[in-house]
Amino acid sequence: MKRVFNFSAGPAILPLEILEKASKEIVNFKESGMSLMEVSHRTPLYEEVHNEAIALIKEVYSVPDNFDVLFLQGGASSQFFMVPMNVSVSGKSAGYAITGTWGEKALKEAKIQKRDVVMLCNTKESNFNNIPKNIEIKSDLSYVHITSNETIQGVQFKKYPETNGIPLIIDASSDVFSYKIDWKNIGILYAGAQKNAGPAGVTIVIVRKDLYERENDSIPTMLRYSTHAKENSLYNTPPVWCIYMLMLNMKWLKNLGGIDAIAKLNEKKANLIYKAIDESAGFYIGHAEKSVRSLMNVTFVLKNKELDAKFIKESEELGMLGLKGHRSVGGMRASIYNAMPVEGCEKLAEFMKNFASKN
Amino acid sequence: MKRVFNFSAGPAILPLEILEKASKEIVNFKESGMSLMEVSHRTPLYEEVHNEAIALIKEVYSVPDNFDVLFLQGGASSQFFMVPMNVSVSGKSAGYAITGTWGEKALKEAKIQKRDVVMLCNTKESNFNNIPKNIEIKSDLSYVHITSNETIQGVQFKKYPETNGIPLIIDASSDVFSYKIDWKNIGILYAGAQKNAGPAGVTIVIVRKDLYERENDSIPTMLRYSTHAKENSLYNTPPVWCIYMLMLNMKWLKNLGGIDAIAKLNEKKANLIYKAIDESAGFYIGHAEKSVRSLMNVTFVLKNKELDAKFIKESEELGMLGLKGHRSVGGMRASIYNAMPVEGCEKLAEFMKNFASKN
Repeated sequence: MKRVFNFSAGPAILPLEILEKASKEIVNFKESGMSLMEVSHRTPLYEEVHNEAIALIKEVYSVPDNFDVLFLQGGASSQFFMVPMNVSVSGKSAGYAITGTWGEKALKEAKIQKRDVVMLCNTKESNFNNIPKNIEIKSDLSYVHITSNETIQGVQFKKYPETNGIPLIIDASSDVFSYKIDWKNIGILYAGAQKNAGPAGVTIVIVRKDLYERENDSIPTMLRYSTHAKENSLYNTPPVWCIYMLMLNMKWLKNLGGIDAIAKLNEKKANLIYKAIDESAGFYIGHAEKSVRSLMNVTFVLKNKELDAKFIKESEELGMLGLKGHRSVGGMRASIYNAMPVEGCEKLAEFMKNFASKN
Repeated sequence: MKRVFNFSAGPAILPLEILEKASKEIVNFKESGMSLMEVSHRTPLYEEVHNEAIALIKEVYSVPDNFDVLFLQGGASSQFFMVPMNVSVSGKSAGYAITGTWGEKALKEAKIQKRDVVMLCNTKESNFNNIPKNIEIKSDLSYVHITSNETIQGVQFKKYPETNGIPLIIDASSDVFSYKIDWKNIGILYAGAQKNAGPAGVTIVIVRKDLYERENDSIPTMLRYSTHAKENSLYNTPPVWCIYMLMLNMKWLKNLGGIDAIAKLNEKKANLIYKAIDESAGFYIGHAEKSVRSLMNVTFVLKNKELDAKFIKESEELGMLGLKGHRSVGGMRASIYNAMPVEGCEKLAEFMKNFASKN
């Protein structure tokens, strides 16, 4: 088999070794005579997988004891409405920092529910290529929502805003488990698994327990965080296979050395590509301002747009897929999540250099 | 490998051949050098799987053209609140037929949202062992909700109530794709995939298109059926792997001869076990009244409860798992969904006979 380097933004590359492990276990899980997909979620056989996934997340991510790790469905897009539904406070505004497309979508859902909101910043005018250094946060907000890494524009918070105790809600879909988290101020951190942690179909939601007190009785049972917390995310049938793959992913990450090890690798990988951009004498132009460049999604355009198709074609021929940028930025985007090997980034940087010199 | 017969209520047995196919494709999908779990949902490689799953459902289930087949997340439990949210009409009541535990849960979610509801029937007094023959339906209801098959109690509608044009909403989680549907009157039919159609993690929701007109602007984007209909269930990242498994399942069903063929098999399978109950001279007692016995979940108790543990132990030793009944009925439950081979039911019936004669 000829394995490609997959630079897709999500669903995204997974470690080969966990795919191979899954392949072995998919028909006959632990000699049970069944696939894990067939196992009831009310059996020790599945519960062990489930609880191991939670324990590994707590361990690898150093989640403090006053948080629950929940497995929900419906992606980060469902958190966009669940957050205002569960965490907003009547009479108080919620603050949203808008630093890209996903932050805009999160804000939209708070408005649909007629919650009072304030924009803490909005960098749309510069096509979301930067993040203001100092975001002013008034003390009377119900919560502060940020998108730690904007997948489409490739901008990333290098330090979370200081909210002085106001619950910070983080959409970390595209940089979860990629660097060490400072849990101070965090109320909720959520992420669809399909970029940095597993396949599509499960959302990791890490909730500070005191926030359940903000829920009210008119919220549907399935949409309350407390429902899933009380039942250890087994209130209804969980997406068993997705959680199994997530568990394998977390085990892989732990064996690799955990968050500190992956954070170093991620920096190294991103630097390889950013260097290729910066040393191209203007052949490639990075989209994000240097100080907020994402270590997960490297966005850049070719000075000569007419070469875009050729760049894509030649990179694909070399086994590098998914490099076409999102239409709202154009050009290229290299998504280099945890599972992307260093070799993938070396190969891409090398190709970029060669392509620039030839064209 | 020693394959067991898995009688679990869900997640449940899957056809062995689709597990084997998945095992082959999980590392390298169609020679792409990637797992399908790694493929972006915006690529032709995935879209083909997605669209084939929809087309197969439409074909096998004879879904009329004025319906959309949607793939959502959050299980049937999420439909319990999405239905009243999207389909109720101000000033009109919604009618709920309560014939088991799941119907009760559906009703609860309509009440949480303060919708006007009327109970069309409620068989709780007899521990949900029957379904009234004639359910009176007034002409001014906004919709009528039924649970076509109650998984826990093992009672099944043999004919849907005549609603005379009022949209009939069916929770078909445990009998979807198991018999031919009369689409007349149906507004929405929904089902979690994990019993009769695939792994846990995707919900099949088949919606009559005119119902989108009932939605209002205060519903979160992700919770409107029309959002997913407009985007062919690709508004956000779908649970790629679960839909792939669902597609393989529908292909298996089609190759087997489709709904008519499986309906015959299901009748044959259920009859084997009901016969073992009825011919046991009272050793086994069926929970459901004969006229509404489920072809999917066969519920029965042992006259002598003290033999329960022995029954479970001996059946497990023979490779038959998941037979313990739900605590609200007690005794045993044999879930014999589409993927359960006839041999599994023959083996169980034989065991029941032997067990009765020995004890």
